[in-house]
Amino acid sequence: MASLTVLGLDPGSRFTGWGVVREESGVLTLVDAGVLRVQSLGDMDLRLGAIYKGVAELVARLSPQEAAMEDVFVSRNPSSALKLGQARGAAMAGCSVAGLRVHAYEPSVVKKSLVGVGRAEKSQVAFMVAQVLSCRKDMPADATDALAVAVCHLNQRRFRRLSGEP
Amino acid sequence: MASLTVLGLDPGSRFTGWGVVREESGVLTLVDAGVLRVQSLGDMDLRLGAIYKGVAELVARLSPQEAAMEDVFVSRNPSSALKLGQARGAAMAGCSVAGLRVHAYEPSVVKKSLVGVGRAEKSQVAFMVAQVLSCRKDMPADATDALAVAVCHLNQRRFRRLSGEP
Repeated sequence: MASLTVLGLDPGSRFTGWGVVREESGVLTLVDAGVLRVQSLGDMDLRLGAIYKGVAELVARLSPQEAAMEDVFVSRNPSSALKLGQARGAAMAGCSVAGLRVHAYEPSVVKKSLVGVGRAEKSQVAFMVAQVLSCRKDMPADATDALAVAVCHLNQRRFRRLSGEP
Repeated sequence: MASLTVLGLDPGSRFTGWGVVREESGVLTLVDAGVLRVQSLGDMDLRLGAIYKGVAELVARLSPQEAAMEDVFVSRNPSSALKLGQARGAAMAGCSVAGLRVHAYEPSVVKKSLVGVGRAEKSQVAFMVAQVLSCRKDMPADATDALAVAVCHLNQRRFRRLSGEP
């Protein structure tokens, strides 16, 4: 495939960050990024419906071929884990129903892929996302996190390709 | 409204129980019930897509007007809570995108509504579901749990109506 467009997602029950990155001949470009804000909708069923529809609209508008998100810390308390899981479930369903596979990466892998070390500060990750994609540095944190995992996925894919994996 | 059809759901990352109950002039009838089995699909994104699509198909086929599910015990470990949350998120998004509001009830409220006490055994709940809906007693447990919460929702609605609430 000469080019590949990836949707990175950072789902949450209040804010779901998203970022679309395109790789063409080894060059990464920011297509678009933003945040789905669903908190004002109130009840969780309405928020989850909006996350699903938001993701489905992004896929229809920007035509990514694959999706990526971070694997989640499970050291949170069960109540937060449940809420976060619900947001992830709505977002992953949105990708899957649209035909996109969702690839998950450990947070340390995302950081290492961008900054070179697995325990980098958020600000370092944001700095490197802006460098790699030649974009502004003051994007919302959720959008930056989503772009970071999209870039990580494209890097991992390239590594796999270079090392002869299918 | 002369009649009301409710979709009860018991979402899980392996099995999602469902049951549709119709109330007409105070009489409850089982419309249909079953289990969406998604474990064999393997990866979680595919399972969540299948849960969403399964719920959307049930809504299209059986035309429920409202949905109900249990509030979840959050005394589980965070990893289970995350998985369960993802399944709930996909199922709730399926209802919400189809225009159904999702009502959640504490497990003790569901049991009390069916059996009269909040700490009933599962077998008592299954027995009462079969009694109330005049249906067979050997349904899959996940389907029975889904029917129980649908019946609970219809009972609660009737109580609210009788006590003059909107």
